[in-house]
Amino acid sequence: MIRHIVPFRLKHARGSAEEAGFLAANRKLADIPGVEQFELLRQISPKNDFDFCVSMTFADQAAYQAYNNHPDHIAFVQTRWLPEVADFMEIDLT
Amino acid sequence: MIRHIVPFRLKHARGSAEEAGFLAANRKLADIPGVEQFELLRQISPKNDFDFCVSMTFADQAAYQAYNNHPDHIAFVQTRWLPEVADFMEIDLT
Repeated sequence: MIRHIVPFRLKHARGSAEEAGFLAANRKLADIPGVEQFELLRQISPKNDFDFCVSMTFADQAAYQAYNNHPDHIAFVQTRWLPEVADFMEIDLT
Repeated sequence: MIRHIVPFRLKHARGSAEEAGFLAANRKLADIPGVEQFELLRQISPKNDFDFCVSMTFADQAAYQAYNNHPDHIAFVQTRWLPEVADFMEIDLT
């Protein structure tokens, strides 16, 4: 089991249509084969600067790699994540 | 629902008896009332410097606050966490 956790902050204003559009696109990652337990939650601790966090679980490293290489994931990173995300970090747990 | 996620790195050498002792003490936090879905996992992404991550879920803010104020939690923070943890961050999701 690998849990992939990515807290992030958007460039968009909070509550904006652009924010809603990004979050809707982000949720579609749940449809990529191998993605389990997908969650997109709000980050509320004042001890960091992230506003959201996406979390998903993979059965093993092969499933995680297949997700990373999936064209829908690559397209999302290029067309939405890189232009619209101000800051993020990646945490992988096993 | 509030999920409390804390990636951390210990001052102890990896695989040491001190590390094992800390992790055993950390796991006892699961016994504090209100703590649900307790997990203590290894952090394996090379994109950050944390080696472990503790995750737990609370039903609501009141349960989270009761945990924070519980004497077993306060004692753990003072006698183990602060002296033995080199770096950490706190992520709270809802």
